[in-house]
Amino acid sequence: MSKKLIIMARVNEYAPRDRNPHIPFTPEEIGEAAAACRAAGAAIVHFHARNDDGSPSHDPERYLATIRAIRERSDILIDCTLGQATIKGDEARAAHIARMKGGPAFRADLAAIDVGSTNIDVYDAAQKRFTTQDKTYVNNISTCMYLAKQMDDVGVKPHLTCWTIPFLRAADALLDMGVFQEPAYVQFAFCEGGIIGGHPCTIRSTLAFLDVMPANRRIEWTVTCKEGNLLPAAAVAIEQGGHISPGIGDYPYPELGAPTNAAVVDFFARMARAYGRETATPAEARAMLNIPG
Amino acid sequence: MSKKLIIMARVNEYAPRDRNPHIPFTPEEIGEAAAACRAAGAAIVHFHARNDDGSPSHDPERYLATIRAIRERSDILIDCTLGQATIKGDEARAAHIARMKGGPAFRADLAAIDVGSTNIDVYDAAQKRFTTQDKTYVNNISTCMYLAKQMDDVGVKPHLTCWTIPFLRAADALLDMGVFQEPAYVQFAFCEGGIIGGHPCTIRSTLAFLDVMPANRRIEWTVTCKEGNLLPAAAVAIEQGGHISPGIGDYPYPELGAPTNAAVVDFFARMARAYGRETATPAEARAMLNIPG
Repeated sequence: MSKKLIIMARVNEYAPRDRNPHIPFTPEEIGEAAAACRAAGAAIVHFHARNDDGSPSHDPERYLATIRAIRERSDILIDCTLGQATIKGDEARAAHIARMKGGPAFRADLAAIDVGSTNIDVYDAAQKRFTTQDKTYVNNISTCMYLAKQMDDVGVKPHLTCWTIPFLRAADALLDMGVFQEPAYVQFAFCEGGIIGGHPCTIRSTLAFLDVMPANRRIEWTVTCKEGNLLPAAAVAIEQGGHISPGIGDYPYPELGAPTNAAVVDFFARMARAYGRETATPAEARAMLNIPG
Repeated sequence: MSKKLIIMARVNEYAPRDRNPHIPFTPEEIGEAAAACRAAGAAIVHFHARNDDGSPSHDPERYLATIRAIRERSDILIDCTLGQATIKGDEARAAHIARMKGGPAFRADLAAIDVGSTNIDVYDAAQKRFTTQDKTYVNNISTCMYLAKQMDDVGVKPHLTCWTIPFLRAADALLDMGVFQEPAYVQFAFCEGGIIGGHPCTIRSTLAFLDVMPANRRIEWTVTCKEGNLLPAAAVAIEQGGHISPGIGDYPYPELGAPTNAAVVDFFARMARAYGRETATPAEARAMLNIPG
């Protein structure tokens, strides 16, 4: 039996609806999308809280309301953001995590920590200019340790996002220190569409991460792609025992007709089954990642 | 005839003398080391200005005095630092560059620009702790553009240092914009000894950069390794048409008996010749890199 594949659906990020109208904003919309992704084969939903108009929300209550809306509709595991570059300050970024204490009904199972720093400006090749010139996404070691502690206190498992090879080396060191626990859930974030802060989404750039995977650590790794089709990295992940994190939050998938999140999950789940890997249920993913029940 | 190999000797960085007593500090010491490296096969010397006691100097006059001391002793090309994380602020970092205007005798031929941001804290695996937790080396796009402009104004060619794949993608974009000119001199900086801000110095991690080398650009690339033996990356560079940048400033080479810089250059030059690549003279390197005369 092949190892089961964990699909994490990245349903909305801060994507607008102009290129794909199916981006969910409200707690109810996110809850519905998550349930549909679960039915299509996803074990985890990754979401960003959004206001009704789609703007980013950093209100802890909005996070909790969204988590409740997801839990009411399915048993899918829940992974939330800390807001990336839209919010500053370690405490502010983790405010919704602290708010989850003691409440299994509104506590996320996982939350993202980016384990390093990189420039995230976007290059517009057609115009031969950067749309911004000063966007360094800074996550120093101290920040990573603080965020890990906040999550530990509440019982939320960190998922460790790696944009470059140094992020993976930092994750390895922080696992060595016991700041993070094994099995680690590591996500490689590829970058297309003019975002140059990570590796391009190619077979070789995926293998570049696997070449430096720490030996003798229990790591379950997954792949995502900002502003590009996940197919190349997904092919490597499906063949080499990794997992996948597709979704219209990252990329509108015009080549699939600007589909719903569930349709994107279904597309990748079929591809995995054709290769001989069945999708993991939330309960199976929980066991594989050792997420507190 | 195989392509000539450009050896850039990285003679001192901010290395102390406790692990290798041959680290040059003063203008005269750096000048002597540079001349010896030239005799051993180096075409370029990369240096950091140091005070007599070895502490970092950011005094533009100290840079100029060092350049004069190098020029008095050989025809080696000169590449200087902008001080990495030891000095803050774009203007301060480029103060010595501005001071070089109009003076070929005290003008460097090349100077380093790090084309991106990364965390540079050091992990002490034996103690299971980071020696620092907040060292993010920030070079945003705006900084890169400012430094390129300063160098252009003076006639100093930037050498583009890449710690991770996003740095190379930024270099490609800035070449596309005309901020940097081809042929570009790109340096891949590998990291060992607990520094986790770049790729480990392995054959595969070197190939990871080559896999994303921009197509159709004229790039002369070189390799260096902070706190580790350059051999694996040098092997790839020698075999695949790249160049090399060894030196005791980066690593004391205890396995070679804590040698002089010239002895390290000689070691790598012999290795290259054994493979069939002769070392480039300064004049040949100047032509290959299109450095203003």
